[in-house]
Amino acid sequence: MSSARASTGSRTEKRKAQTRQKLIGAARAMLADGTVQQASIQDITEAADVGFGSFYNHFTSKSELFEAAVADVLEETGALLDELTGDIDDPAAAFAQSVRLAARLARTRPETAKVLVRHGMTYLGSDRGLAPRALRDITAGIASGRFQASNPRLALAAVGGSLLATLHLMLSDPGVPLQKTCDQLAEHLLRLLGLPADEARELSLRPLPEAGPIG
Amino acid sequence: MSSARASTGSRTEKRKAQTRQKLIGAARAMLADGTVQQASIQDITEAADVGFGSFYNHFTSKSELFEAAVADVLEETGALLDELTGDIDDPAAAFAQSVRLAARLARTRPETAKVLVRHGMTYLGSDRGLAPRALRDITAGIASGRFQASNPRLALAAVGGSLLATLHLMLSDPGVPLQKTCDQLAEHLLRLLGLPADEARELSLRPLPEAGPIG
Repeated sequence: MSSARASTGSRTEKRKAQTRQKLIGAARAMLADGTVQQASIQDITEAADVGFGSFYNHFTSKSELFEAAVADVLEETGALLDELTGDIDDPAAAFAQSVRLAARLARTRPETAKVLVRHGMTYLGSDRGLAPRALRDITAGIASGRFQASNPRLALAAVGGSLLATLHLMLSDPGVPLQKTCDQLAEHLLRLLGLPADEARELSLRPLPEAGPIG
Repeated sequence: MSSARASTGSRTEKRKAQTRQKLIGAARAMLADGTVQQASIQDITEAADVGFGSFYNHFTSKSELFEAAVADVLEETGALLDELTGDIDDPAAAFAQSVRLAARLARTRPETAKVLVRHGMTYLGSDRGLAPRALRDITAGIASGRFQASNPRLALAAVGGSLLATLHLMLSDPGVPLQKTCDQLAEHLLRLLGLPADEARELSLRPLPEAGPIG
């Protein structure tokens, strides 16, 4: 009996997780096709194919759902950036590549980037997505003597805040040249982390790999 | 007649401006004493000694009023920072001093800093306050060969975003050491702008002047 109860519990849990995932999936599709602004909660539950009322079992507002959807995208983006830097031994080279690719979100996923900028400080403190990976890479770079920073969390804040504001700049002015801006941001941030100017320049101009959905 | 009309018009304009200024003054007092969260619009109009209805002639929401009040504080802060750097010829030394003092807002004016962080991107694009002065100083530093940046607006975004995220870090963790964090931020940002590491360090540790309300 206790085992039957446990099994029922886990079925309920599973269904609940599925509903949440369906809502996040619908929100991600709306982020991708640019229909976030006009979507009502009913539009979202219809697109997710779940009951209207179940929305509020998971989220208190539309904004909270989209924040969660963006956290999901950032987690995937972080995993992809990790994969793409897997072969790079130099923490500075890996960091430069990840920054340049992450900053492209302003053009490849503008709606996601908008939510990211709007709730930026939330993501900077998150234990998923880009922030914990950037902190890991900054800490490794300090340990190897490649980066100079007395306080890794301050370095993360400085780097993360710069990325957010640069995304905002690219989103608010379509005339800003994408590739050059991403490369120059990486150059600035490598210098911020203590690299000499010539090395920072060279690392921020290396060829980039194909990056699929964020490329 | 036309002159009488103009005079009536200007009296009305003047009264309107005074009401707006009273509302902003009340909001600034609430930012200073930490009563922003619980204040209702009626509390604000009573504190400002203006009619309840006149609030909506000037602002659409409480949040809009506090944004304007913070813009006002930032304009004053910017003017004060200008005054304090008046005698400093080196753009890098002036920049370091201004960054270190501005970052102290997290402790000297925490409520103001919170609004600043929440609406940060708005202030980065503003033509009042800290952003236009930082852009002026960055541009002057590039012209004099002291700073290295191909795009002054990108450099402003990188610097401004770093400041916002560092304010957020200091606001959300009271254990973060204030002075050291402000100094290290300036060191990081001078490197970001192209200064060699040893100069960046030295400039970020110089004695600071008395800075009155933001010191």
